[in-house]
Amino acid sequence: MLTTETISDIIAKAIASIKYPEAPFGLYAPIEYTLESGGKRLRPQLTLSVCSALGADVSRAIDAALGIEIFHNFTLLHDDVMDSADIRRGRLTVHKRWNDNTAILSGDAMLTMAVQYIARTPSDVMPQAMELFNRTAMEVYEGQQYDMDFERSNNVTVPQYIEMIRLKTSVLLGCACRMGAIVACATDDVAQAFYDYGVNLGLAFQLKDDWLDTFGDPLVFGKQIGGDIINAKKTWLLINALSECRDELLDILAEDLEPEERISQVTAVYNRLNLSERCNKLIAEYSERAIMAIDAIELSSDAKDYFVSLAKKSVERTH
Amino acid sequence: MLTTETISDIIAKAIASIKYPEAPFGLYAPIEYTLESGGKRLRPQLTLSVCSALGADVSRAIDAALGIEIFHNFTLLHDDVMDSADIRRGRLTVHKRWNDNTAILSGDAMLTMAVQYIARTPSDVMPQAMELFNRTAMEVYEGQQYDMDFERSNNVTVPQYIEMIRLKTSVLLGCACRMGAIVACATDDVAQAFYDYGVNLGLAFQLKDDWLDTFGDPLVFGKQIGGDIINAKKTWLLINALSECRDELLDILAEDLEPEERISQVTAVYNRLNLSERCNKLIAEYSERAIMAIDAIELSSDAKDYFVSLAKKSVERTH
Repeated sequence: MLTTETISDIIAKAIASIKYPEAPFGLYAPIEYTLESGGKRLRPQLTLSVCSALGADVSRAIDAALGIEIFHNFTLLHDDVMDSADIRRGRLTVHKRWNDNTAILSGDAMLTMAVQYIARTPSDVMPQAMELFNRTAMEVYEGQQYDMDFERSNNVTVPQYIEMIRLKTSVLLGCACRMGAIVACATDDVAQAFYDYGVNLGLAFQLKDDWLDTFGDPLVFGKQIGGDIINAKKTWLLINALSECRDELLDILAEDLEPEERISQVTAVYNRLNLSERCNKLIAEYSERAIMAIDAIELSSDAKDYFVSLAKKSVERTH
Repeated sequence: MLTTETISDIIAKAIASIKYPEAPFGLYAPIEYTLESGGKRLRPQLTLSVCSALGADVSRAIDAALGIEIFHNFTLLHDDVMDSADIRRGRLTVHKRWNDNTAILSGDAMLTMAVQYIARTPSDVMPQAMELFNRTAMEVYEGQQYDMDFERSNNVTVPQYIEMIRLKTSVLLGCACRMGAIVACATDDVAQAFYDYGVNLGLAFQLKDDWLDTFGDPLVFGKQIGGDIINAKKTWLLINALSECRDELLDILAEDLEPEERISQVTAVYNRLNLSERCNKLIAEYSERAIMAIDAIELSSDAKDYFVSLAKKSVERTH
């Protein structure tokens, strides 16, 4: 299997070599701005890693990997409009730097660009790749819709929340993994195993995001702790607390408190309910399920190490 | 060739039989609302007509025809957000009936739905159909971007305007026609001829839209005459007038006039420049070019009649 560094390098070069038409500038400049702004590139990394781990030539997977990364960035661009978010990866969001119309239209163009990259997948697997990509995209929109619905409701159950984050974020990691298996011409069983790996990895990562926002170390986390509490964001922590101490929590949220005071009162409820430990236990479970999913697949030891350590990182990461 | 009525019927049934998932309601209800709201269904009509005219089974073309119609409706949905338009086809626009976020997200899902339909095209032609569809989609976004850019400029030239409407509206008619030829496994020459037919038809239709908004018969047109003048919309008429009587026109547009007075003064300039006749002459030219484009193709007389009379209708229509 190629090393993580080699794969990162291939992805960075592929993204840097995307050609943007010069005109109309207002359409393409925001796309270039979005794609060059970095991020972890986790999804294309997964696609190429799975492809390489299965012994196939990663050059077969590059277009599909880029398609998924461009799609991911498109969803962030449109989500930032919907959430009125100002900052993304330390820079102004597209709708802030330009305006809402630019963000909507450039996002649309990014979605079509993503499909164009998926369509460039080698023809023997292109229909399968396209089918997986489109189905996943629909699920991601469903997840975003549930997320918006949930923000207006205080009756979200834990299983509903898990299903929402599965759709909104995890299936795309599953798709990225499965795409690598598809272009490597793997069997359906192997493709499904990698899909399950990616979905469980995604659930673990998202829950750790929720956990870190409240229980992370402010010196390491890099963001303000407690942002989710201030915004009364429906995280796994808040949904559990709402179902177990409903009235107390609604009272705190209704009060006109200073930010620090609200964070401290809500965190106190979380602690009383032992939610930090319970959340970490669940994260470890999903991480374990990810590892179990690919347990039966014959892989070189360095390939296995890569996927296992990535799953463990979802438990252990501190930022 | 199947009759226009038979083809209309096939399209209406196909659109009525689209299945929408029940949940999340907030995502799928606006899509159903948009697709059931009608419109002329000109694009799928073109796809199936070309396919049938070339002697192929139209069932091969239905998915591609639906994909193009769904894409067209997606562009209207997002354009209505960008233009803050309230009414579309006599009903509230999606962003008015729901909200902007719903319109953005449901639009995204419609674009992916459109791609899913294109991907269901018979496998022997699917990659070609997909390539045509994606390329056309990018051109449509470019056209929309130029349209938005032009609204902020008083220096748009006539060739720039023609290129904008070619991208924003005409290439999709060209794509609809070419798609019918592709699924009918026509030669590249035939496919290109039908593409040229569609693009020129689209230019004629769009210019007639501009003409009717100022010179249409209020009793027949169905909309208020002069809406474009009130909104200082950069139509073919205004762009010509701006290039020929710049200062006079900018003075009128800068004045604080009653709507009727502004319409009357601007129309007087148009009349002095003979723009009604010149515009109609150009429309007739594009219509003629559309007819010429498919002149060399061997078609049954009823097929030829259909395409010729559609092109003539773009000249003669009164609403």
